[in-house]
Amino acid sequence: MKKSTQFRALLESNEVEFLLEAHNGISARIVEEAGFKGIWASGLSISASLGVRDNNEASWTQVLEVAEYLSDAASIPILIDADTGYGNFNNVRRLVRKLEQIKVSAMCIEDKLFPKTNSFINGEGQPLANIDEFCGKIKAAKDTQEDPDFCVVARIEAFIAGWGLSEALKRAEAYYRAGADALLVHSKLSTPADILTFMEEWKNTCPVVVVPTMYYNTQTQVLVDAGIKLIIWANHMMRSSITAMQRTASQIFEEQSLLGVEGEIAPVSEIFRLQNAAELKEAEKRYLPKNGAPDIEYRHAS
Amino acid sequence: MKKSTQFRALLESNEVEFLLEAHNGISARIVEEAGFKGIWASGLSISASLGVRDNNEASWTQVLEVAEYLSDAASIPILIDADTGYGNFNNVRRLVRKLEQIKVSAMCIEDKLFPKTNSFINGEGQPLANIDEFCGKIKAAKDTQEDPDFCVVARIEAFIAGWGLSEALKRAEAYYRAGADALLVHSKLSTPADILTFMEEWKNTCPVVVVPTMYYNTQTQVLVDAGIKLIIWANHMMRSSITAMQRTASQIFEEQSLLGVEGEIAPVSEIFRLQNAAELKEAEKRYLPKNGAPDIEYRHAS
Amino acid sequence: MKKSTQFRALLESNEVEFLLEAHNGISARIVEEAGFKGIWASGLSISASLGVRDNNEASWTQVLEVAEYLSDAASIPILIDADTGYGNFNNVRRLVRKLEQIKVSAMCIEDKLFPKTNSFINGEGQPLANIDEFCGKIKAAKDTQEDPDFCVVARIEAFIAGWGLSEALKRAEAYYRAGADALLVHSKLSTPADILTFMEEWKNTCPVVVVPTMYYNTQTQVLVDAGIKLIIWANHMMRSSITAMQRTASQIFEEQSLLGVEGEIAPVSEIFRLQNAAELKEAEKRYLPKNGAPDIEYRHAS
Amino acid sequence: MKKSTQFRALLESNEVEFLLEAHNGISARIVEEAGFKGIWASGLSISASLGVRDNNEASWTQVLEVAEYLSDAASIPILIDADTGYGNFNNVRRLVRKLEQIKVSAMCIEDKLFPKTNSFINGEGQPLANIDEFCGKIKAAKDTQEDPDFCVVARIEAFIAGWGLSEALKRAEAYYRAGADALLVHSKLSTPADILTFMEEWKNTCPVVVVPTMYYNTQTQVLVDAGIKLIIWANHMMRSSITAMQRTASQIFEEQSLLGVEGEIAPVSEIFRLQNAAELKEAEKRYLPKNGAPDIEYRHAS
Repeated sequence: MKKSTQFRALLESNEVEFLLEAHNGISARIVEEAGFKGIWASGLSISASLGVRDNNEASWTQVLEVAEYLSDAASIPILIDADTGYGNFNNVRRLVRKLEQIKVSAMCIEDKLFPKTNSFINGEGQPLANIDEFCGKIKAAKDTQEDPDFCVVARIEAFIAGWGLSEALKRAEAYYRAGADALLVHSKLSTPADILTFMEEWKNTCPVVVVPTMYYNTQTQVLVDAGIKLIIWANHMMRSSITAMQRTASQIFEEQSLLGVEGEIAPVSEIFRLQNAAELKEAEKRYLPKNGAPDIEYRHAS
Repeated sequence: MKKSTQFRALLESNEVEFLLEAHNGISARIVEEAGFKGIWASGLSISASLGVRDNNEASWTQVLEVAEYLSDAASIPILIDADTGYGNFNNVRRLVRKLEQIKVSAMCIEDKLFPKTNSFINGEGQPLANIDEFCGKIKAAKDTQEDPDFCVVARIEAFIAGWGLSEALKRAEAYYRAGADALLVHSKLSTPADILTFMEEWKNTCPVVVVPTMYYNTQTQVLVDAGIKLIIWANHMMRSSITAMQRTASQIFEEQSLLGVEGEIAPVSEIFRLQNAAELKEAEKRYLPKNGAPDIEYRHAS
Repeated sequence: MKKSTQFRALLESNEVEFLLEAHNGISARIVEEAGFKGIWASGLSISASLGVRDNNEASWTQVLEVAEYLSDAASIPILIDADTGYGNFNNVRRLVRKLEQIKVSAMCIEDKLFPKTNSFINGEGQPLANIDEFCGKIKAAKDTQEDPDFCVVARIEAFIAGWGLSEALKRAEAYYRAGADALLVHSKLSTPADILTFMEEWKNTCPVVVVPTMYYNTQTQVLVDAGIKLIIWANHMMRSSITAMQRTASQIFEEQSLLGVEGEIAPVSEIFRLQNAAELKEAEKRYLPKNGAPDIEYRHAS
Repeated sequence: MKKSTQFRALLESNEVEFLLEAHNGISARIVEEAGFKGIWASGLSISASLGVRDNNEASWTQVLEVAEYLSDAASIPILIDADTGYGNFNNVRRLVRKLEQIKVSAMCIEDKLFPKTNSFINGEGQPLANIDEFCGKIKAAKDTQEDPDFCVVARIEAFIAGWGLSEALKRAEAYYRAGADALLVHSKLSTPADILTFMEEWKNTCPVVVVPTMYYNTQTQVLVDAGIKLIIWANHMMRSSITAMQRTASQIFEEQSLLGVEGEIAPVSEIFRLQNAAELKEAEKRYLPKNGAPDIEYRHAS
């Protein structure tokens, strides 16, 4: 099944579904191997992995280069965190064409301004995109996509910016009417209060996606009962790798030796396995000269 | 001190020095924070992180894009694993110019053929580069560099390919005469036997670098006593992150909840700290309009 | 009709067909507007336009970035000059996947060594690729393509390197059997002698493509009568633009004024037309807020 | 002399100086060969050459990739048309660092909004950047540059947008105070009226740059007498190449033959000369094995 069709199936599933963050090729492969049915290509994690800030310091094409590696590395669908769409409706049109080329199945755009600020930094009071202007982006995206299964998720930052429920609902309605395939309602509270009040009012006319980074201690069943269709674990692969690398780096530095870490970390052969080195070995049998002939021919003396 | 000058100081240090692998911006920053004085930009780890194989599947410019993020993220010098130089002497010339631009302090090139195979896969019996041709690459690199402190490390694959000590010494002598600033003698044995026999014969006319991935249980002092000046811990950040991400992904998948992992992984604030979000907040005070003025001015009605 | 299907139709056409070189987005659009049914993305012209040499100084991904602009700018199919495939069969596999993504319809690979030399420089006596190794590349390409209409053109350099007719025929037969959709027989003579002798012997089991850069004064009908199916005008847009730009630059420099050149060159509006600025103006009506609302909303004072 | 020092010398010259547009490596080389002392890396021409619109459809890193080719191809300084700086002050800071790396000597930023519109399309009535916000960008750029000779040219769009002289002067004063090394006053009139009225009021406290694309029939001496220090011929290489390529493409298409165009366009050898193929031939003598040895060594049978 095409990856975009897989993603649409996740949105339309009768059960709650989960995406786990990945930020490069190898984390994408690990997410898939763990059993997940989809990947969240997190803007925060990708920028962090590159060593830049989550404020559009990396250009949109640099982000897409990362997304291309993720897409090549995984056979499960990817929902990309495309920030604000990196400009206006016209930038969004170009973005959609490029995402389809690299087989990213869906994109999430948020109603903030370019260049963006991470929602957990300075969120309070920041201006939001004009509703009509943002709806224009959604329409432009839907009109541009060639693959009917490509999905546009509209992310509502009204709670993050402190505008409250009525603003969130007004935007949800507008974005849905503009053609969004799903809505992502974001919150920075440590409880699911924002989400639950929203879901009580929202008539479930389209799927709602949530990101419980800050309300991580909420029982998943609470979100399911509220009607949430898709839950994104948004940055945990990055956070896991940071902790591990900090420990390993410190230990090797202190011990000036590999002996202490060798048993704690994956063997080199595990890197090769994740890179699928075995497939190349098989392919060499098919495509390289069997008799060990050199790959050059010099001219016969005449 | 300029990063290339820092690197040259490591080579000329009276004590043994260590480089730890990094494969992206955040791992580079973690290596620096752990106290290391230099970074090994590993070809294996970089290709793995991208999700491709260590067989020049990523183009040389794609590798340099990664190296640029590393270089931007760290104030300690980087020795890049530049495989075979990605072609002939002319490709090496272009490579050196581009490495200097992105402030990578040193490059390691190896006497294998393009496209390369990882030294721990199929090494035995593989052809090596012609000595004169490889010396031409070294000379071309040294003639091209504008920064006198940029270093070229010549990596000898004679032991890996099964050609033995005399071939390794012959190549060492030739590469040194061609202008190499240091030699990297590689071995896939689980003991330091190759290295120790080489060091007995080598007159220490230039620094020797080693990569004890396979002979990890060798006491570092043994290498130091043999005269090794620089030791590279070559892939341990990647291997550490793989193990951690596999565990985290599995646990979240099983538990369908973040509660179990939250305490085990870095908080979101640690990502922000590694990205240096605080600096941006300070800068906003300096460079954004103080009065909260919008960043647009509309024409006065006339 | 899909672009790759268009290209296959050109190969299978009953009439002779023509490709004209393009080296960037705007030249691609001009080639299409002139009436051509296909584009030759020339390695020489692309490298020249970038300001580098035709010796794989630009990485293969840098070449593909150019090809992507060409492909986005034209609705007619592109045959890309992919040099030697930029490595071995495995690099070719990755190349084919990436070409399909950016909707390049066909690729031409040649039986020389990486890094390549332009066929009109130092061609004589240069070693060629081993036949079995090159056939492995062709097979790998054909096995990799997902679009059945994607075409692989195998370019024979036997005449260029001075190996003669029998070598050319031997290679033609081998490449055809390996799966090549067409053969490109290259010659640096100022007459079509190489081509004509080849065509007399070749049983026309698959289409033959030629590049009459050096035998430009050959009547096209002579080539058609010999059985040629596709003729590539390989570098004439680049050469045309060089002459024009040299004249314009000199004239403006001498005259320190635009008056002399203004009437000789396209107006600014022609740039806008070629960029399709009009479409954006239309789109703005559809997607931008109609009432001239600003694209920002500030929070209501509470 | 460093390229940035050359550029500063142009700004401080006692005579009027000229920049000619280039949009890729080869046009940069032609501009230099014609005698010009500097290059204008035009946003319009670069976007056109890529086949995209002058509305930030290409990402800023894609533009910089083009600028890098220009910079590598020319030994004269480049002033890059950096649109609005591609975001806010923080994007500008990153931009300056990257421009310095690729040895672009100066950048011009304009007081419009991202994504930009070409000044000759829809200019009238478009909103401008807030003055304080734009001054923050200038300050951030000047604080970021490491090379003291790197120049920031602030482009004033007040006339283009129809705001008039007093607004232009207010902005000029503010940008100069913020640290701009020069001001570019833009006008879309077919006469130099905007420029001349501005120059009458402006006390010449810093150099003023103009772009006479629309008022091309103004005598250069008129601008010099008004006090203009630097004149940019902004898009004439692109316009020249369009006309030439359209003619050549049409002629080859009509004639189905090269005979008619061959004498009108540069020979292939001129491409090679512009690529400096001769230098590579010389370098091969220095760096390739002299005895024609193959570049591979196979293991001696033992």
